[in-house]
Amino acid sequence: MSTDPNNSLPAPSNTRGAAYPRVHPDLSVSFRLEAPTARTLQVQPGVQPDGAVNGLGAGPYDMERDDAGVWTITIPPAVPGFHYYCLLIDGVAANDPGSQTYFGYNKPTSAVDIPEPGVDFYDAKDVPHGEVRAHWYHSAATRTWRRFFVYTPPGYDTAPETRYPVLYLQHGGGEDETGWTNQGKANFILDNLLAAGQLVPMLVVMDCGYALKPGEVPQMPQAGAGPRPPSTFEEVIIHDIIPTVDATYRTLADREHRAMAGLSMGSLQTLQITLAHLDTFSSIGAFSVPPFRGFDVQNNDFDVRTAYNGVFADATAFNKQVQLFFLTAGTAEERFVKGIHHFADMLGQIGITCETYDSPGTAHDWQTWRRSLHEFAPRLFRA
Amino acid sequence: MSTDPNNSLPAPSNTRGAAYPRVHPDLSVSFRLEAPTARTLQVQPGVQPDGAVNGLGAGPYDMERDDAGVWTITIPPAVPGFHYYCLLIDGVAANDPGSQTYFGYNKPTSAVDIPEPGVDFYDAKDVPHGEVRAHWYHSAATRTWRRFFVYTPPGYDTAPETRYPVLYLQHGGGEDETGWTNQGKANFILDNLLAAGQLVPMLVVMDCGYALKPGEVPQMPQAGAGPRPPSTFEEVIIHDIIPTVDATYRTLADREHRAMAGLSMGSLQTLQITLAHLDTFSSIGAFSVPPFRGFDVQNNDFDVRTAYNGVFADATAFNKQVQLFFLTAGTAEERFVKGIHHFADMLGQIGITCETYDSPGTAHDWQTWRRSLHEFAPRLFRA
Repeated sequence: MSTDPNNSLPAPSNTRGAAYPRVHPDLSVSFRLEAPTARTLQVQPGVQPDGAVNGLGAGPYDMERDDAGVWTITIPPAVPGFHYYCLLIDGVAANDPGSQTYFGYNKPTSAVDIPEPGVDFYDAKDVPHGEVRAHWYHSAATRTWRRFFVYTPPGYDTAPETRYPVLYLQHGGGEDETGWTNQGKANFILDNLLAAGQLVPMLVVMDCGYALKPGEVPQMPQAGAGPRPPSTFEEVIIHDIIPTVDATYRTLADREHRAMAGLSMGSLQTLQITLAHLDTFSSIGAFSVPPFRGFDVQNNDFDVRTAYNGVFADATAFNKQVQLFFLTAGTAEERFVKGIHHFADMLGQIGITCETYDSPGTAHDWQTWRRSLHEFAPRLFRA
Repeated sequence: MSTDPNNSLPAPSNTRGAAYPRVHPDLSVSFRLEAPTARTLQVQPGVQPDGAVNGLGAGPYDMERDDAGVWTITIPPAVPGFHYYCLLIDGVAANDPGSQTYFGYNKPTSAVDIPEPGVDFYDAKDVPHGEVRAHWYHSAATRTWRRFFVYTPPGYDTAPETRYPVLYLQHGGGEDETGWTNQGKANFILDNLLAAGQLVPMLVVMDCGYALKPGEVPQMPQAGAGPRPPSTFEEVIIHDIIPTVDATYRTLADREHRAMAGLSMGSLQTLQITLAHLDTFSSIGAFSVPPFRGFDVQNNDFDVRTAYNGVFADATAFNKQVQLFFLTAGTAEERFVKGIHHFADMLGQIGITCETYDSPGTAHDWQTWRRSLHEFAPRLFRA
């Protein structure tokens, strides 16, 4: 592999001016840290659900120390896309000061964004750019001030008579409301689709999927289970966020112009919330749906006719109500991609219209979700 | 000191759900990290310019390991305010996973925000909240896409006939356009002042003070020097940012309704840019002006009559043009506070009207700058 620094470039995920990590033309990656007092230094790629490896490989990769106490390693070619990692300083996980931090694993986390050769759909290109607004609101459900981000498309401020449909877009487990823009580049994806004439102009609302009432204990959302009370986040989005958005922005405030999508944990939340509120949402996107309860081919306790309070039982009614039901996964996250196809097959057998998208070669990571959004968003609000 | 965990609270700067760092009623702070393989673990407060200590004290503070490999320390009572720190893992600087990261020292950095008893002017209170918008623009000067943040006050979207004055507000060395909201809580400070009827509603534009042309080598801005070519950031703010802001937002696009302020490095930029462009700005705020060139009482090479191309030479003209010339520093950053008073005295001796504010007990840190903004902003646009 080439490790000529003249042919390599700092990763786009680096902090301002940081020379390392560097990505080489063959997508091998060099890491570097000055740490004279460390005994060992390693690069540890983020671990996926089920313990699967991410696009940087399994690791840990032992770095080598030179006489000045500078540690370096070049790891084998990576899969294009956005991959979390940490440095192990004498075995203790730490961020790499060369990387920006991204909220993942419930803390600020280093990552390296490996450019995909020839692919620019999520780059900040020379096109009109929308804004991403931080909006604070008081949640009656949690009794706290919370923050969502809203993408407003280019022209929003200069077209005061125009009203827009809204996509509610959720992050994954351990992440937060910053994920879809910081990691996912959702705003640039939408800017580029709009400039290419491939998107209905829309607002995109991104909130934090974690929401607790005072004293409430956190619970992971689960797929396919029977009747259960709505989660606090469901209360937040239905009773706090949507009314706030419709009161604050020039929305088309009806179900036909409201969609929800999410990735991983956010896909479970999307399914649970949209399928219980088809009076509120007409389009649904579930990216990398975790197969741990329900959709797994090894799991037979999921009955598509009774799941989600029987919403799928009347396929004709469902197909008439739901404009788009879209499932995606990466081909390198095998259980997930099998799971969504098993789910789609079950739905197909009872006549539910469902589209799927397989992201070639990507795992449970943001390249899968960038591509998923890029496939999903242009299909929205076409009815 | 009390270290009863029942009386302590997680710092407001912690990540979601992180129990440590914790602040005790006496403002002592407990840190904690599970790191079984570390030989030594220390808390190292951020170092100030001139090597001065920040509000956490000098450190490093040695943490103590228990049998399970969990390291803890409680450090003496801290000064209220926002203080950077890192953990030294076997001597290697690393972030604390319990803290959010803030862009400081040119990288994501841990910090602990010590609440000031009885003080809530920068809290997210139950008042109307403005938005903070991320806006991307192409800079002709740097030939790159850049991002600024704009605070729009509550009601901006519902008062389409209203136009607003604009404050351009800059961060310090090693920080970026996120500093004034993430560290400084500028949006909450303005929300609270507005709710109290103490502020003229205004937009606040926050950009990154680092700007380089292709191939340009970074240079620190300097105070009080003689004629020199404008910095690239000066080109960016004058020729890229201000025209973009005036074209995009409902501004009052004249000098009477345009102010600039900055802290530390940003104060030098503010002085250099505003004093060269009094046709563009009418109010000036310089918070914690570094005394390393010019304003230092030990430094006699600064001639207030010739400095900044002689802008102060005609005091009558200057006082007529400039609505507000405001210098601040913290009393615990001794050279800075002496420096601004020496500067103000020199200006006073030649008849220039200049206001000062001393932040009691605070050093070269964000509590000084939060208070400085809280004092400065209500004085703006009153002419």
